[in-house]
Amino acid sequence: MTRVAIIGAGPSGLAQLRAFQSAKAAGAEIPEIVCYEAQANWGGLWNYSWRTGTDEAGFPNHGSMYRYLWSNGPKEGLEFADYSFEEHFGKQIASYPPRAVLFDYIEGRVKKAGVRDWIRFNNRVRDVRYDEATGKFSLIVRDTVKDAETTEEFDNVIVASGHFSTPNVPYYPGFESFKGRILHAHDFRDALEFAGQDILILGTSYSAEDIGSQCWKYGCRSVTVAHRTAPMGYKWPENWAEVPALVRVEGKTAHFKDGSSRDVDAIILCTGYKHHFPFLPDDLRLKTANRLATADLYKGVVYVPNPKLFYLGMQDQWFTFNMFDAQAWWVRDCIMGMIALPDRATMEADVAARVAAEDALEDDYACIWYQGDYTKELIDETDYPSFDVEGACKAFKEWKGHKKKDIMKFRDNSYKSVITGTMAPKHHTPWKDALDDGLETYLKN
Amino acid sequence: MTRVAIIGAGPSGLAQLRAFQSAKAAGAEIPEIVCYEAQANWGGLWNYSWRTGTDEAGFPNHGSMYRYLWSNGPKEGLEFADYSFEEHFGKQIASYPPRAVLFDYIEGRVKKAGVRDWIRFNNRVRDVRYDEATGKFSLIVRDTVKDAETTEEFDNVIVASGHFSTPNVPYYPGFESFKGRILHAHDFRDALEFAGQDILILGTSYSAEDIGSQCWKYGCRSVTVAHRTAPMGYKWPENWAEVPALVRVEGKTAHFKDGSSRDVDAIILCTGYKHHFPFLPDDLRLKTANRLATADLYKGVVYVPNPKLFYLGMQDQWFTFNMFDAQAWWVRDCIMGMIALPDRATMEADVAARVAAEDALEDDYACIWYQGDYTKELIDETDYPSFDVEGACKAFKEWKGHKKKDIMKFRDNSYKSVITGTMAPKHHTPWKDALDDGLETYLKN
Repeated sequence: MTRVAIIGAGPSGLAQLRAFQSAKAAGAEIPEIVCYEAQANWGGLWNYSWRTGTDEAGFPNHGSMYRYLWSNGPKEGLEFADYSFEEHFGKQIASYPPRAVLFDYIEGRVKKAGVRDWIRFNNRVRDVRYDEATGKFSLIVRDTVKDAETTEEFDNVIVASGHFSTPNVPYYPGFESFKGRILHAHDFRDALEFAGQDILILGTSYSAEDIGSQCWKYGCRSVTVAHRTAPMGYKWPENWAEVPALVRVEGKTAHFKDGSSRDVDAIILCTGYKHHFPFLPDDLRLKTANRLATADLYKGVVYVPNPKLFYLGMQDQWFTFNMFDAQAWWVRDCIMGMIALPDRATMEADVAARVAAEDALEDDYACIWYQGDYTKELIDETDYPSFDVEGACKAFKEWKGHKKKDIMKFRDNSYKSVITGTMAPKHHTPWKDALDDGLETYLKN
Repeated sequence: MTRVAIIGAGPSGLAQLRAFQSAKAAGAEIPEIVCYEAQANWGGLWNYSWRTGTDEAGFPNHGSMYRYLWSNGPKEGLEFADYSFEEHFGKQIASYPPRAVLFDYIEGRVKKAGVRDWIRFNNRVRDVRYDEATGKFSLIVRDTVKDAETTEEFDNVIVASGHFSTPNVPYYPGFESFKGRILHAHDFRDALEFAGQDILILGTSYSAEDIGSQCWKYGCRSVTVAHRTAPMGYKWPENWAEVPALVRVEGKTAHFKDGSSRDVDAIILCTGYKHHFPFLPDDLRLKTANRLATADLYKGVVYVPNPKLFYLGMQDQWFTFNMFDAQAWWVRDCIMGMIALPDRATMEADVAARVAAEDALEDDYACIWYQGDYTKELIDETDYPSFDVEGACKAFKEWKGHKKKDIMKFRDNSYKSVITGTMAPKHHTPWKDALDDGLETYLKN
C-alpha cells in the first residue's frame, strides 16, 4: 500500500488530511497517511503558545502568534469552499475574527472529518532520506514526549511545515549594547508588555503594521516605524511616525538615515521570516525567496528535482486557507494517479513561466488576481468545490481601500461570503475599543 | 590517518584542541582534527550575542550570556594550569572578572596555540551516524553561511556542545494570559530592560541569584524569588523577597503556595537547562540528569554504549575550565592509545560507583571536593600540569562563606592563584557600583 507522510498539521497539513479524507468518504481507496506534528496540538501558527525561544522539548518554538491578534484580512478571502463559516458557527459572523475564532473554525472542519487519528503529535521530523534504489523516503522522527526516535518508509512526502516560523533577524551597529529590549515579531506575545513605552519597529509589512497597531491600541507611548524603501503611508495616529531606515543605535538612541534620532525602549524587528527546513538534506530542500511563484515547484507544489516530494503553502500569500485547499486537493490527485506529471523539462518550463508572469505584475491588485487565478487553476483540475474566486479578489480589493481610508478602522467593515452569498454582520464593537479578543465575546453579534 | 571530530568550540572544545596541539608541540603524531562550530566565533557561552530565540541561520541561539555578567565564582577556581591569568594579562587581576575579561583569557590560550584553523565556523552538525560495518562515524554538517551540507567520516567523535543552552521551561496556570513578559534566563540580555519593574524570578540556583542581583543593581523596583523547595537564604536587599512556590498567575498577579500574591511586570524563569543533542540519534545520545556523576560516561567522558564517542563537560559543574582540560587531555590520550579502555562491564561498574559515591555526599562542600578529586584523578593519568586542586577547593569554600556574609559584596573579595601562588588584587570598585563591565575598566587595577 502507498504510504504518504505529511509534515505539519497546520492549515496546509490539515487541508491535505481533509483532501484525502474527502476522497475516502467518496468511496476512493486512499493511501495510508501519517501526519507528523511537532506541537502537541494541531493548527500550526493558529495554535497559540505563550512560549518564546524554544518549545517544551528544546526545539525552536513554532508559534509566531500573539495575543489580541485579529485577522488582518477579511475572512471572506479565506473561507473554505467545503465548510463555510455559517456551517461552523450556525450563523454568519463579522469579517475580521480574532485568533480564537479562526482556530475554532479551522479545527471544526477537521474534527468533522475525523482525521485526528492520522496525526502523530509531539513528533518532530529530524531527517528525511531518499533512497534512489528503493524509490522510497525514510523519515527519522523524534517523539519528544517519549524521547525516542522512529524510522519509517514512505512513497511520498508532503512538506507542510510553513514558512512564518523562523525569523529573519538583521543586525544593526550598536545592537550588542542597546540599553533596552530587542525582539523579533516572532517573539512578540502581548502588547501590554510595551504599555507606556516608546517602541521602534523595523519593517513595513503585515507584522509591522499589525504589531504597531496592537501596541498603539494597548497603550504604548509612541510608535516609530523605520522603512528601508518606502513608508507604509497610512494615516497613522498622532503618536505614530514613519522614519527612514535605521542606521545604528547607541545606548537607547536610534539613529536614522536622514540624520534624525529617537530614544526608544524597545526595538521590534518586523523583518520577515525564512523558508527553513532543518530536517531536510540539500537534495530535497526547497530554496526559494518568499514570492508568489516559488522556485522549483511545478504547479507551485511538486518539487521538480524529486517529484515524489511536495510542498504546500510555500508561496507568499494573499490567498491562504482556500489556496492551501486547492493545493492539497491537487497533490492528493497527483499521488492517487488521477493527475499525471509531465517530464522534467515541462515542469521546469512551468516554473519559469510562473516566475516570469509574476515578475511582470504591476501592483498588489495584479498580485491578488495572479494568486486568485493560480488557485482557480488548481481547483479546476480537481473536485474541490468551485467558488467565486473573483469575488474573493474583490473582497481583497475593498479591504485595501478600507485600510487606506482608516488603518485603525478597517476591521470595522463587512464583506459578502463568496461561499454562501451572505453578507457578514457589522461587528458590535469597533476594533480599537475591543480589548477582549475571546471567542464568546466576538460571537455576540 | 585517524580522524577526530569535535563538536563545539566553547571552553570544552577549545580545551580539546589545546590538548591535541600540546601533544603535537611535544613531538607526538596526532590525528587529523576537525572542530565544527555552529557560531561564527569560538568561546561557546562566552561568545556574547544580543540575539534571542534563533540565530542568524534560524537555529536555536546558543548563547545564554547576558550583559554585565561577572564570574559568579572566583577565577582562582577555574584557572588553566598551562596558561595562568598572569601569563595572559601580564599581571595578576582581580578575582571575579566580567565576561569580556574571561573571554579574552580563554581566547588567549588558543590563539597562542594556533588552533583556529582546525575549526570550521558556521558549521552546524545536523546528524551523526555510526556504521557498525566500517566502525566509522559520518557527520552530516550544514555550513549555514554557504547554505550547503557536507558529509565526512571520522574514527572518533567528541561532543563538546555544552548543556546550558537549551532552556527547561515549565508551565504554570495562567501563563497563557499573563499580562506582562515571561522569559527564560536563556533569553535574559540586559538588566536595564527591567529598570523600574517588579520582577518575579522562579528558581534558586545561579541564574536566579545572579539575574536577580543584576536587576537589583541596575534599578528594578523589586525582586521576588519563588522557590519550590527552600529559599536561597542570603541576606537580600530591602526590595527583595523570597516566597514559596508559584501556583498560578492571573492578569499581572502571581499567586504563591502560601496564599500570598504579588503584582509583577515580568517573570524570569531561572529553571535550568536541558542536555539536548538534536543532532544525535538515540544510540549515540547521552541521556542524563544534570549531576556530578553523569549517566553512561566512563570516567565522566567515554560513552559506554559506544566508546569511540566521547562527551566533555556534561557534568553539573563546580569546576569548569580546569576540569574540561583534565577531561580533554584524558580523552586525547585515550584516542591516541596511551590510555586503554577496559571492557564494558568494568566501564559500567565505574559509572555505577561514581553515581553511588555522589549520592552519598552530604553537602555542597563535599560535592566540591568530589569534583576536585575527579579532576585530579584524570590529571594524574595524563601530562596535564598538576596543580593544587585542594587549594582551588579551598577558594570555593571561602567563596561560599563570602556569599553568606554579604551576597551583594562577595565579588569584592580576592583569592590566591593555585597556579602562580600570587594573591589577586582587590578590585578598584565594589561590584554593586561598577556599572561598566568592559575589559579596559576591569583591568585598571
